[in-house]
Amino acid sequence: MNNQKAASSKEQKKLVANWSHLIKVFIRPENETSRNALVKYMRPILFGLHDFLNQHVGVTSNVSLKDMASHFTNSTLSEQPEKKLADVITDLIENIAPHAVNIASPYFVGHMTSAIPFFMVHLKTIVTALNQNVVKIETSKVVSILEKQIIAKMHRLLYQKKVAFYDANIQRADAALGVFVEGGTMANITALWVARNNLFAPKKGFAGVAREGVPAAYKAYGIEKCVVLVSRLGHLSIRKAGGLLGIGNKNIISIGVDKNNRIKLDVLNRTIKCIKEKSKIKILAVVGIAGTTETGTIDPLEELGRICAENRIHYHVDAAWGGATIMSKKYRHLLKGIELADSITIDGHKQLYMPMTCGMLYFKDPERMDAVAYHSTYINRPGSVDLGIKSITGSREANSIILDSAFKIMGTRGYALLIDHGIELAAELAQEIKKRPDFQLITEPLLNIITYRYCPLDIQKKLAEPGHKGRRALNRRLNEMTRMIQILQREAGKSFVSRTTLMLGNKQKERIVVFRCVLMNPLTDMNILKEVLDEQEEIYSKVLPEEYRF
Amino acid sequence: MNNQKAASSKEQKKLVANWSHLIKVFIRPENETSRNALVKYMRPILFGLHDFLNQHVGVTSNVSLKDMASHFTNSTLSEQPEKKLADVITDLIENIAPHAVNIASPYFVGHMTSAIPFFMVHLKTIVTALNQNVVKIETSKVVSILEKQIIAKMHRLLYQKKVAFYDANIQRADAALGVFVEGGTMANITALWVARNNLFAPKKGFAGVAREGVPAAYKAYGIEKCVVLVSRLGHLSIRKAGGLLGIGNKNIISIGVDKNNRIKLDVLNRTIKCIKEKSKIKILAVVGIAGTTETGTIDPLEELGRICAENRIHYHVDAAWGGATIMSKKYRHLLKGIELADSITIDGHKQLYMPMTCGMLYFKDPERMDAVAYHSTYINRPGSVDLGIKSITGSREANSIILDSAFKIMGTRGYALLIDHGIELAAELAQEIKKRPDFQLITEPLLNIITYRYCPLDIQKKLAEPGHKGRRALNRRLNEMTRMIQILQREAGKSFVSRTTLMLGNKQKERIVVFRCVLMNPLTDMNILKEVLDEQEEIYSKVLPEEYRF
Repeated sequence: MNNQKAASSKEQKKLVANWSHLIKVFIRPENETSRNALVKYMRPILFGLHDFLNQHVGVTSNVSLKDMASHFTNSTLSEQPEKKLADVITDLIENIAPHAVNIASPYFVGHMTSAIPFFMVHLKTIVTALNQNVVKIETSKVVSILEKQIIAKMHRLLYQKKVAFYDANIQRADAALGVFVEGGTMANITALWVARNNLFAPKKGFAGVAREGVPAAYKAYGIEKCVVLVSRLGHLSIRKAGGLLGIGNKNIISIGVDKNNRIKLDVLNRTIKCIKEKSKIKILAVVGIAGTTETGTIDPLEELGRICAENRIHYHVDAAWGGATIMSKKYRHLLKGIELADSITIDGHKQLYMPMTCGMLYFKDPERMDAVAYHSTYINRPGSVDLGIKSITGSREANSIILDSAFKIMGTRGYALLIDHGIELAAELAQEIKKRPDFQLITEPLLNIITYRYCPLDIQKKLAEPGHKGRRALNRRLNEMTRMIQILQREAGKSFVSRTTLMLGNKQKERIVVFRCVLMNPLTDMNILKEVLDEQEEIYSKVLPEEYRF
Repeated sequence: MNNQKAASSKEQKKLVANWSHLIKVFIRPENETSRNALVKYMRPILFGLHDFLNQHVGVTSNVSLKDMASHFTNSTLSEQPEKKLADVITDLIENIAPHAVNIASPYFVGHMTSAIPFFMVHLKTIVTALNQNVVKIETSKVVSILEKQIIAKMHRLLYQKKVAFYDANIQRADAALGVFVEGGTMANITALWVARNNLFAPKKGFAGVAREGVPAAYKAYGIEKCVVLVSRLGHLSIRKAGGLLGIGNKNIISIGVDKNNRIKLDVLNRTIKCIKEKSKIKILAVVGIAGTTETGTIDPLEELGRICAENRIHYHVDAAWGGATIMSKKYRHLLKGIELADSITIDGHKQLYMPMTCGMLYFKDPERMDAVAYHSTYINRPGSVDLGIKSITGSREANSIILDSAFKIMGTRGYALLIDHGIELAAELAQEIKKRPDFQLITEPLLNIITYRYCPLDIQKKLAEPGHKGRRALNRRLNEMTRMIQILQREAGKSFVSRTTLMLGNKQKERIVVFRCVLMNPLTDMNILKEVLDEQEEIYSKVLPEEYRF
């Protein structure tokens, strides 16, 4: 792990950068020996990394973070080469992989990052070997065309428009049914960017918010501020977008949720009415969530769509997590109303099981993105098919190849099986938690995310007493205990459950720390989850320091 | 290429999505046969794609774009699997790759996308196989620590601070010497986001621009607008940032350039003075360019640094293209003064020869990014090492592994050889263009980008006559001719030179269309470039339609 002495001095003498060595790495190897070597190196990459990871399930090895960091303090780049490719691969396998996180373990049920099918690695390698840049047609050609097709396919899955609509728009140069981005955060930011530029469009005496800025836009439209309405469980990126886009993240208004963690429609309606009465405020967008990050809840998408249509508000659905549920015949009804959304975020690297990093954003109206077009004289000329015209990012790899190929290999039915497994496993886990007296289910799962905590039965009884005075104090102690159990379990390295803090209680003002399971790995089953619960019980009774215990 | 009938009906009958098939693709294959198959698939990916590309040098095949698009109009996702991995790979090799762009050809000298060393494909495959998510330490661990180290190494290359500085900051949880982003565009946007949030920091009665928005910020600071100053050759992304961040892209002020395409310092100084006299305007940043996209010019970085320091303005250097020159002992003097920059953009997928998509942003002050920190309860908690805290993007793949490994394999010296080759080849090409009577060099290369046009000698003479009345008309005709030659050469498919439009002439008000060569492929040499020029001569004399000729 110590990079400073990574290469033996003997090796250092051998390796010298020179032109003839250098250009060799750019030339396609013509002889079979060199080709075989390059293929052979893929073996440890495909299996070696995983073999090592397999010995370290869970998030942590026994080297602590601080200790680990102390080995990575070399700030000097070597002038001469230090290693050959084969040694770099060995080094990564022996010194890096064992200290990385085994996100692919079926015991890793804590985050939205999980195992991906093996073929995804091959598909990403194809993208890299082609190394096309879809910012412009001159560096991508057929790949940009392929991207437009897979975007239309996904759009149809979500919006179910008529065939004629797709025939007209699928390859139209200036239509944008959607766009590939880096992930859900960028998709949400892009959606609100598009909504902002459309809300403050050019009009007489005003060249539009893109050109003139937010202060001039407010002046031109006679308002003092604009707001975005989203449930209290909205993703961090909505706030980030508020800050980035210059409307201020305090103007991302949190709407309360009901006991099922869904946005309260009456509160939303009241808020909209109240804002509309104040003529100095505009509503930039209402965001519905299809799979909240913390609890996997889905807002009432259809009702939200109706409210937005009535009030002519841009309706964005953040389906980064839950969007893929549309492929499940059994559970797609949960997303009913998503087709009303003006824009939809969906993440490739979440439940489409693509490698990091890939997100997408879809638009009902193929011209909605016109408001964010940028051109230049050397690329992205008006009228071209250049995909960089309507995108925050410039140069961009062709992840569309991965998604297109993955669908060919899996079919929507393959994805549906994964989705169904996660949802049904979460329901089973909920039953199991209810069965165990010392556990408390905090949120009933709707999709494949579940929150709960360890809470000895007698404490649960105390908490249930109406008007119990020690309630807040008890919850504070439980919070500290939950936090500590989560850390101890993580550090034991056998399994990983994440934790978050939910606002709960009568008026939902009490901060409750909970365990959070995200179930998206098809190799995770009830036996494994029972082990995870057993381990938490054991940590409470045998490992937890006395002061945390009840 | 026709996807609709891609899978034979026989195959479609065979392939059915079911659970036992499905989980197999998630399980590490234990038997040697399966493992061998997965390794074997890498062979066509590594070589097949390139073999096919090799038969189609240049940007286009003989299938026109429109014709090609007509084969990609299927908007239906198949419910059942259509193909196995092996067939998907074959399909990509036979039907997609031949119509992609052979950016790796030494005859492809038109854009900043070029050949990458073979080992880069392996390195990207490693990143994918590990599939860590550096948004948080819980899904990346050692990889986030490795990222902090390679960022410090790059920072030191650029800023040359004392060792003690790096010792103190390299692994400091809350320090950010830099950040990995998707590319130069995102780096420039992030730099101006950081600058904006620092300029309009919280103060008494004002919670900061991130919280309150741009209109409130202007009010709190008593101004009417803020501006960014950058030369006329500034990258599109600066304007995009102006729009995105809510200050308005018309407030990206273009400063004129001298005959060497460098920002005019006297005009800049006058502009700053003029703005400062008007107390209602603030300068958000001055952007210096180290390698303009169109001409490869480097602004006087040292003088810009001095001017910014005197006027206390955030100094950003967009070194997306030219930054890598710092590794060349012979040419790093061209970047003198870059160490004065408050922030520096550098692109990984440009002259660091990384695969798409990777950019970086560096900060002189490790605390400058504090102004853009975002936290949540489930990840990115305050005080954690989570790299997602200060970043526009959320989830993010670990491209730092690629950069770190590439330096180990190449050494800075290896990169320097590539840099030197490009710069020196451009100088040679300039000489060659001057030697040919019917060519006109438009911009002398400083780095490895050169612009020129075809212009018959007698027309050159006419244009050189002082006060020649037909000058503008002649240039318009030349522009049309240049545009047509570029298109004809691109469509011939043997080589690819890009084109752009420069503002030239006495008062730089004439729009001149030029050929643009970007020389970054080590396999490109003078023989190839002579062929490119020969081909352009031949297109003029033999292929160009009569009406374009003189």
